[in-house]
Amino acid sequence: MNVTTIDPRDGRARATDLTETDQSGVETAAGQASRATQWLIDLGRLGRAHLLDAIATSLESRRGDLVAAAEAETGLSRPRLDTELTRAAVQFRMFEAVLRDGGYLEAAIDHAADTPLGPGPDVRRMLVPLGPVAVFGASNFPFAFSVAGGDTASALAAGCPTVVKAHPSHPVTSRVSADAIDSAIRAMGGPGGVISIVYGEQAGRWLVGHPAIRAVALTGSAGAARALQSAIDERADPVPLYAEMGSVNPIIVLPEAAASRADQIADGLFASFTNSGGQLCTKPGLAFIPSDPAGDRLVDALRDKVATSGGAVLLNERIRDAYDRGVDNLQRAGARLAARPRIDAGAGFTVAATLLEVELPGLTGEIADECFGPLMVVVRYRDVAELDAGLSIVPPSLTGSVHRGPGDDLEVVRRLVDVLAARSGRIVFDGYPTGVRVSWAQHHGGPWPSTNAVHTSVGATSIRRFLRPLAWQGAPEWILPEELRDGYTAIPRRVDGRLEPGTE
Amino acid sequence: MNVTTIDPRDGRARATDLTETDQSGVETAAGQASRATQWLIDLGRLGRAHLLDAIATSLESRRGDLVAAAEAETGLSRPRLDTELTRAAVQFRMFEAVLRDGGYLEAAIDHAADTPLGPGPDVRRMLVPLGPVAVFGASNFPFAFSVAGGDTASALAAGCPTVVKAHPSHPVTSRVSADAIDSAIRAMGGPGGVISIVYGEQAGRWLVGHPAIRAVALTGSAGAARALQSAIDERADPVPLYAEMGSVNPIIVLPEAAASRADQIADGLFASFTNSGGQLCTKPGLAFIPSDPAGDRLVDALRDKVATSGGAVLLNERIRDAYDRGVDNLQRAGARLAARPRIDAGAGFTVAATLLEVELPGLTGEIADECFGPLMVVVRYRDVAELDAGLSIVPPSLTGSVHRGPGDDLEVVRRLVDVLAARSGRIVFDGYPTGVRVSWAQHHGGPWPSTNAVHTSVGATSIRRFLRPLAWQGAPEWILPEELRDGYTAIPRRVDGRLEPGTE
Repeated sequence: MNVTTIDPRDGRARATDLTETDQSGVETAAGQASRATQWLIDLGRLGRAHLLDAIATSLESRRGDLVAAAEAETGLSRPRLDTELTRAAVQFRMFEAVLRDGGYLEAAIDHAADTPLGPGPDVRRMLVPLGPVAVFGASNFPFAFSVAGGDTASALAAGCPTVVKAHPSHPVTSRVSADAIDSAIRAMGGPGGVISIVYGEQAGRWLVGHPAIRAVALTGSAGAARALQSAIDERADPVPLYAEMGSVNPIIVLPEAAASRADQIADGLFASFTNSGGQLCTKPGLAFIPSDPAGDRLVDALRDKVATSGGAVLLNERIRDAYDRGVDNLQRAGARLAARPRIDAGAGFTVAATLLEVELPGLTGEIADECFGPLMVVVRYRDVAELDAGLSIVPPSLTGSVHRGPGDDLEVVRRLVDVLAARSGRIVFDGYPTGVRVSWAQHHGGPWPSTNAVHTSVGATSIRRFLRPLAWQGAPEWILPEELRDGYTAIPRRVDGRLEPGTE
Repeated sequence: MNVTTIDPRDGRARATDLTETDQSGVETAAGQASRATQWLIDLGRLGRAHLLDAIATSLESRRGDLVAAAEAETGLSRPRLDTELTRAAVQFRMFEAVLRDGGYLEAAIDHAADTPLGPGPDVRRMLVPLGPVAVFGASNFPFAFSVAGGDTASALAAGCPTVVKAHPSHPVTSRVSADAIDSAIRAMGGPGGVISIVYGEQAGRWLVGHPAIRAVALTGSAGAARALQSAIDERADPVPLYAEMGSVNPIIVLPEAAASRADQIADGLFASFTNSGGQLCTKPGLAFIPSDPAGDRLVDALRDKVATSGGAVLLNERIRDAYDRGVDNLQRAGARLAARPRIDAGAGFTVAATLLEVELPGLTGEIADECFGPLMVVVRYRDVAELDAGLSIVPPSLTGSVHRGPGDDLEVVRRLVDVLAARSGRIVFDGYPTGVRVSWAQHHGGPWPSTNAVHTSVGATSIRRFLRPLAWQGAPEWILPEELRDGYTAIPRRVDGRLEPGTE
């Protein structure tokens, strides 16, 4: 069956020269990936570092084609897509640095020694690639969480070929991305199948069930994660699933913060929840704002900004419909409409931003649930003592934010941060959760339903998901990977329990 | 319902003063564990280090009671149990060292900086405890993989209270173990519920479904792992499962090894597969031995040792019955009986060791399957070139071993090691997989069906299973954990991408 692509700006479907992948196509992709594993391993750590840089360069060299394709398929703005493509390249280059550093291998050497349990043999351990990885790309990040995204970058860095199930919202962008990555691989003499794409839901199911696939990474909904987990449970050999799902990302504005900078926070909140049509997993969906004059000023400013905002093009019809339903459902559940401009929707998937408001005692699980798109619910509270109970209604999230002011009670802040820490993966102070920095210390994850795992999908340590430990006991030096030989000092290693930093 | 305990040496059930845990008992345990989390966190890294040492001392101070209880419930020998209790104490003390070192926190600091994506905020990350952990203890290690085992030690080290579902094979040992651990906790002013036990299968199911439980660790069968996974899938918030299951642990004896030390290898193999009644997850279940005169000599020596061996008491009736069935099934599948002494089984669960033999072309998946107990299948091969195909029939395992000789073709060794590496978690050279060293570099895990995960259940890094990353963005210094403050140098940290070793 042919794959069509839809321009969300006009809602019209266009034919492509792509076809849905049949079972033999999935077999081919998985089989090629399996055979390509050895090439990635043989490249070695530094060879793969070089490859990642070449991929970043190749992606950037096709910036024009990639951004144009993504604009026509997602309706996201050129500046946003331009930045996102840079983000994708930055991610590949960060893993280049991770590979050069080598600490990610967690290399450890315990020399033979007498122990309380008798003579202990020489044991050396490091992480090795899992093998081919299936990646399910996201709708909302055609580059940075899709074919050219962090899952692919970290999997290739780890030494794992990647088969991506292209998101139906951007099949052409996916194809051009894969071609850009593949051409960098070919230029280094690599085989086919280090990166490949399959199209179609059924192809995704075949992929997850394929024996060659050793891990599955998803950016998608909790429902999709549960479906993938049950497909994995049916395998003869279940494999790990790393799912990055939804998130409400509550923001607390403390009274002193509202008093000291109501307008500034209104600007920041508006930008954060409407950026990219509010279609970010870190979008703040709930803002706790005090029921006092400063809070009123903040909400008024926010209302004005929303009321005068233009329409936002959503990614696809399903997301647009879910957004419209969400706006209705939230009002039925008791949130009042605070602002929603009239816009000319036209033929595409354009919607108006929506600001809703509820008093904290009226906050329910239904109101606190994620609604993808440019919507935020303002929750008004009378006393910071109410916030604990309010936060307990909010589902655990990728992030939790707190805006503080000059005269805050520090014990109140500490208690709130403890509550946020228990229910999120990143705590943001006096800022906004969107605009995730790509860096060593970054974490993108959190308790269910934001992610399913104890890992991260952004930042240097996301490579850990596609590696497993392997130990060598009593091995002759010649057979050990060079990183585990005595005298090798280029990378950080733990030798007889003591950490030795690398010299490179 | 009362819990009974059975002495496998005479097969007789005895009453205990323990009862199966009802649903409200499970609620109590999980609720207490949840409330105890803060105490473990407040203890801090060094406080928990002190606690782990105190637990080790407490276990050792009850050595007499513990070993006597375990002997009566498992039929394992006193010297073995004595060593195992030492192993359990060593594990707690290893995590004491892990906590003092602090590298396990994976602390990372990225200061605010200009980046290719614009100004990057200050981001700091480290690992934090997941919360209460459910541990399903093993039948075959009443100390080191049960209540006082590595899962408990690593969970408490991480800061996670632990609720253990006691194995029905040793309820009294479990109780005494928990009391020893609890008394060390109480002596430090800790609350109830940092460690607790529940009894009974249904209690285990309630436990896995309880909202307070944040991770599940199992040492058991693949069937048990699948059942736990499906219980986890049904939770409103699925949690990670870490399952350590079965393993065949193939051993390859190369022709030069057999030629140079047939008798020595026969001694080693015999000890390794009969030790503790062959009831070790690292027991070598298959040995590939050359079909040549040296191989014949090795097999003859092995046969003699088995033929003159005494009976072994197995842990319980189910394991005894499965062993008897396994011996029959393997013969029906085409393995010939090479040796099995007549023994006086008496009233208990005593069995004879069994040596079976098959030519490599006759090796099937059925013959290569794990049979718990003192049984090994010798697989005779004519040419090392046959070994790749032979190993592909063997299920992936915790370990794979190779015995080499002075004149080996190094390329043959390298190829075999590559095959073993793809299908196991630890490669043992010229040694035996049993007797797992407890150390920083150790790894106990491997591809399904040996474990389900990319983690280890033995060694310093097993603590990683019970931790999750948490990031602080733009945080004021006073609210950061001390390990993430500028100027703190006691532990290894990655600062702006550069690893700084700790000064402690």
